[in-house]
Amino acid sequence: MLTVFGSTALDTIRTPTKVLKDVLGGAATFAGISSSFFVKTGLIAVIGKDFPKKYHDVLASRLNLDGLSVKNGKTFRYDGKYDKTLTTRTTLRTELNVLENFQPRVPQHYKKSQFVYLANNDPDQNIALIKEFDRVKFSMCDTIEFWISTKRASVIKMFKKVDAVVINDEEARLLTKEFNLIKCAKKIMDWGTRYVIIKKGEHGSLLFFEDIIFPSMAFSIENAIDPTGAGDSFAGAMIGYLASKKKTDLAAIKKSTIYGNVMGSFAVQGYGLDGLLQIKKSDIKKRVALYKKMTRF
Amino acid sequence: MLTVFGSTALDTIRTPTKVLKDVLGGAATFAGISSSFFVKTGLIAVIGKDFPKKYHDVLASRLNLDGLSVKNGKTFRYDGKYDKTLTTRTTLRTELNVLENFQPRVPQHYKKSQFVYLANNDPDQNIALIKEFDRVKFSMCDTIEFWISTKRASVIKMFKKVDAVVINDEEARLLTKEFNLIKCAKKIMDWGTRYVIIKKGEHGSLLFFEDIIFPSMAFSIENAIDPTGAGDSFAGAMIGYLASKKKTDLAAIKKSTIYGNVMGSFAVQGYGLDGLLQIKKSDIKKRVALYKKMTRF
Repeated sequence: MLTVFGSTALDTIRTPTKVLKDVLGGAATFAGISSSFFVKTGLIAVIGKDFPKKYHDVLASRLNLDGLSVKNGKTFRYDGKYDKTLTTRTTLRTELNVLENFQPRVPQHYKKSQFVYLANNDPDQNIALIKEFDRVKFSMCDTIEFWISTKRASVIKMFKKVDAVVINDEEARLLTKEFNLIKCAKKIMDWGTRYVIIKKGEHGSLLFFEDIIFPSMAFSIENAIDPTGAGDSFAGAMIGYLASKKKTDLAAIKKSTIYGNVMGSFAVQGYGLDGLLQIKKSDIKKRVALYKKMTRF
Repeated sequence: MLTVFGSTALDTIRTPTKVLKDVLGGAATFAGISSSFFVKTGLIAVIGKDFPKKYHDVLASRLNLDGLSVKNGKTFRYDGKYDKTLTTRTTLRTELNVLENFQPRVPQHYKKSQFVYLANNDPDQNIALIKEFDRVKFSMCDTIEFWISTKRASVIKMFKKVDAVVINDEEARLLTKEFNLIKCAKKIMDWGTRYVIIKKGEHGSLLFFEDIIFPSMAFSIENAIDPTGAGDSFAGAMIGYLASKKKTDLAAIKKSTIYGNVMGSFAVQGYGLDGLLQIKKSDIKKRVALYKKMTRF
């Protein structure tokens, strides 16, 4: 089993072609739904009393929700706008709501999870939470600009506690104060993380382990319409794939980034979660086969 | 034999770590020296009377110079400055000098070249020049912002006359007025070019042929110091490799982009041409083997 801890949100997403209001989103939602294609996934997150039943049904259809808390108050809300090239997102508004002062609770049966994904939560909260799992074989975390700017020391401390860090290129640069991505990764590994995966959006990712670099291209998409959650879907697919195979060696981790690229490509093909929700396992299999064929030389 | 037609320059390159004054550069210089590791390469270019003997010796050591014209006047000069991340270059000054009104001349024995590379010259000049070769098996061209802005129709006309177009991502976008690179490539293929290679700098390249996309990562480099000529080295390696194998099928063209990535990575490791001049054939072989190993999954 895999446990995913992170945010569930109601997003307002303004793309050049469509504005979505209060749609289901959040890092853990994307990561968990992505991982659920590979392995049973339990979600640790919080929602408010205003959370629409239809979205609860979506979560329930793919995830174990014993770790989902429902609190008095409003669900976490995010509002962001993409530029016309879909490469830059500007945050218009963030309302923490029930996420503020949320004390995550790990259901007893989640504690046996051998695979744990800590999304871009408060690093101190991630550090505390991971201790509650006693059989962790592989843990992975992400982080975002907000925590790097406000709790840099905790972010670094968190990185020591996990097996793998998955992080955006820009955030890796901000955190390490290096520009070259190899230098960024080396610094993060020096802090104590064994595997570092730097996500480069449409350009794919770089996986680092000791002195090995594994670059992998994104699966090129002509009709990308909404990049929201692509990075979270990437991470969820990675750890979901590993959990399904019960493997954590380098060869498996390399393969997991291919699944990451593929699930990221599905995510950007639909608005919000639609890209993930409209596919079947066989679509993933087909696209991974195509990816292999495409990149062979 | 391969013929390369393009500019030979005296460059002033301002990098964050070093300023180089009046060093040997130019698109054809980089492309030709890169291709010379694979195949005999003839250069069609022009220099002025001020061209230093030491640079002439460098060219002569690697290229056939029967197509090199020496004119009264000064050599073409370029002056550019990189930002501290080495990703953006600002042009400070361009002096066409002898390049202005240059009438390229194709030596008789070059006319048998089956492989021809037309660097980022005036598109009308490229169109006229390619006609002088009567056994062309594979021709490739590049272009730059200047020609796209001033002679767009000629650029498109030139693209119909060659087998492959190699072009930067930003220039492909400017030319096609599309943002998505698949859409850019489709438009260029619709204009009549069979193969389109979009260069993405540190992110590698995308090769397009019919409905096939072949993405290839750059060879990641920690110690990049001067990106000048990396794209030209990429193109030179591609066509040099193809000419050496006398092959122009898709499998060979895919492989040629790997050589392109590898030669681009050598180019950025030294100032000016040093990155290319300090390597041996065996270094290329080793890095291609490493590239294959790195990208396998």
